[in-house]
Amino acid sequence: MRKVYVVGVGMTAFGKYAEKSVLELGKEACKEAFENCNATPKDIEVAFCGAAGLLDDQLASTPGQKILRQVGITRIPIFNLESACASSSVALHNAWNFVASGVCDVALVIGVEKMTGKSREERLAAMSKGSDIEVEKGLTFPGVFGIAARRHMHEFGTKREQIALVSVKNHKHAVYNPKAMYRKELTIEEVLSSPLIADPLTLYECSPMCDGAAAAIIASEDVAKKLSDTPIKIEASVYVTGEYSPDPRNAFITFEPTIRARKIAYKKAGIENPIKDIDLAEVHDCFAIAEIIHYEDLGFCRKGEGGKLVEEGVTWLGGDLPVSVSGGLLSKGHPLGATGVAQIVEIVEQLRGEAGKRQVDGAEVGLAHCLGGFMSGDACSATIHILSRNS
Amino acid sequence: MRKVYVVGVGMTAFGKYAEKSVLELGKEACKEAFENCNATPKDIEVAFCGAAGLLDDQLASTPGQKILRQVGITRIPIFNLESACASSSVALHNAWNFVASGVCDVALVIGVEKMTGKSREERLAAMSKGSDIEVEKGLTFPGVFGIAARRHMHEFGTKREQIALVSVKNHKHAVYNPKAMYRKELTIEEVLSSPLIADPLTLYECSPMCDGAAAAIIASEDVAKKLSDTPIKIEASVYVTGEYSPDPRNAFITFEPTIRARKIAYKKAGIENPIKDIDLAEVHDCFAIAEIIHYEDLGFCRKGEGGKLVEEGVTWLGGDLPVSVSGGLLSKGHPLGATGVAQIVEIVEQLRGEAGKRQVDGAEVGLAHCLGGFMSGDACSATIHILSRNS
Repeated sequence: MRKVYVVGVGMTAFGKYAEKSVLELGKEACKEAFENCNATPKDIEVAFCGAAGLLDDQLASTPGQKILRQVGITRIPIFNLESACASSSVALHNAWNFVASGVCDVALVIGVEKMTGKSREERLAAMSKGSDIEVEKGLTFPGVFGIAARRHMHEFGTKREQIALVSVKNHKHAVYNPKAMYRKELTIEEVLSSPLIADPLTLYECSPMCDGAAAAIIASEDVAKKLSDTPIKIEASVYVTGEYSPDPRNAFITFEPTIRARKIAYKKAGIENPIKDIDLAEVHDCFAIAEIIHYEDLGFCRKGEGGKLVEEGVTWLGGDLPVSVSGGLLSKGHPLGATGVAQIVEIVEQLRGEAGKRQVDGAEVGLAHCLGGFMSGDACSATIHILSRNS
Repeated sequence: MRKVYVVGVGMTAFGKYAEKSVLELGKEACKEAFENCNATPKDIEVAFCGAAGLLDDQLASTPGQKILRQVGITRIPIFNLESACASSSVALHNAWNFVASGVCDVALVIGVEKMTGKSREERLAAMSKGSDIEVEKGLTFPGVFGIAARRHMHEFGTKREQIALVSVKNHKHAVYNPKAMYRKELTIEEVLSSPLIADPLTLYECSPMCDGAAAAIIASEDVAKKLSDTPIKIEASVYVTGEYSPDPRNAFITFEPTIRARKIAYKKAGIENPIKDIDLAEVHDCFAIAEIIHYEDLGFCRKGEGGKLVEEGVTWLGGDLPVSVSGGLLSKGHPLGATGVAQIVEIVEQLRGEAGKRQVDGAEVGLAHCLGGFMSGDACSATIHILSRNS
């Protein structure tokens, strides 16, 4: 397989866009990605569009074609991919395979989602499509992670405040990210006293419904050096699906696909000690407890010790391994299909040293991690991308 | 790029399945594909699932994971692809790229759709998601092809009866296909006197809403020979999207993406004279007039002469280039996402000489053609696959 680089990235600010269609959001992200490098729409040989597509009719059929037409990209193969919350990171993995294996030299990946503007009933009906067995049993996504929080506290003595601290941290980080939806610091008391959503998780511990789009242009080595002065190398692109027979001893407190993806990714990227070898990570912090579980599954600490990691400051900006420096899903926002590529936007800006006040000093290696869907106590999709600035 | 072969195929009969979920239909097609060759679920390295997903909640999120789990396929990368009516032929093109470029040796492609069981209102609302600008203007898919029929008749003197004959032919072919939804011969009078849907097209000239699934296992050359005694070679796999600025002189009477895909595919497969070099074709006969337009766009005859081709018997079983021998979308049925792979099932059975009473004598080369979506007078997706029995 050939070396693959990210050459250009772009994204809309995440938020509520009553006036903008998802097609406009997608266009905006693509335009920024082209402005971000020397590539033009004519350079794109194949495109990939990731969207969960649950809440906007425009996403229901050929969204990639409809978005890309607006930036002058027509005629080429365009793949529309769905994998729940991991839709656009799975799209990126597909694109990476095309470039790495020599199918094409330059590919565009977009992630888009519009989630606002529907009634509460429509949102509930749509989001329940995201699961299957769980929904039949009355279990929602917040419900899953509420159980996870309770069990994590029970099994490992994780403190309620440690979970809340994840949200405090990510909201603090988001203050420095002009693209984040919420840019306001929260105290631990504010997090804990916000409305209860799924015991024990409160409103500020759940990622918000929002709208947004992100785009990334990737290229093979030779071409990448022409298209960007600062190409960022994709050291590993890994996508696995669940095994759906999780050990009941680990149910709700680990996501096995993350562990399996991590082992493959770390081997490919030569990561031995993540705390030392990785400079920042964007993880799938859809709920505050999720980030703690991901620390453990990604090997940042031992199982059960995730609460301590955030309490000791390791994962804060300035710590040994800052996590969700963008504000994460919790504070930057989580427009499902846009999240995967938006994580890549953050990592690329950080590795280029362009992240302003939220810059991780000397960042050389970054990790992005997404989960998508949930079935029988297991994630339907887990992706890990490891990027480095060493070309 | 490496040579790629289809080693196993399977499909459900197409029809109305009130009692079966789309997951069961998908499982059934996969099981048949495995029984059809020496591959087992453990051989599958990557899977691709195509579904338009408009009418069944189970298709809304990670359908591939949910279907494949039931046949024991977990953990591997699974890509869920949407491209309207071309969803699973686009999935096949994605899979072909993976095998041809060496990403993997064995891939599974499934196409599924459940369209029945919803109210008329729900169906109308869902199907209108399939288009965009056209829907805003009040134009439905039957409306598009009604205009196409009227204009084709006006421009080229195509006779009303020639259009109806396409439906007569495909219904006759379907009598011999145990997997077809409708297996009853129709007279030209019956077609013309059936209820008017979109002037001049009648009910029997429109493909039916139905449920179904199809699966194909593809493999690289060395592996294919182990997995099947009769591997069928994919000579060309081409996917293009629209250019959406069609020449108004050709609007509604040609689909430019088909012509563009055809040129690439014929070059790859060494097709110079389609009537001589191709032994059978499954085309996207979503409406009777569509098949006539496809004859022309695929170069089976000159523009405007498609009506004559069917009238003269060229495209009937026993003719020089039988088209829609399976019964086509018109009579076999058109469960959107299942159609692309179902066409491959037909071609493979024909090239193996396993098509029973509908066998095309000595078939060596077959073509499958799909269109997906419609925007600004152009198709959003066109795929062409050319298969041959010469390994």
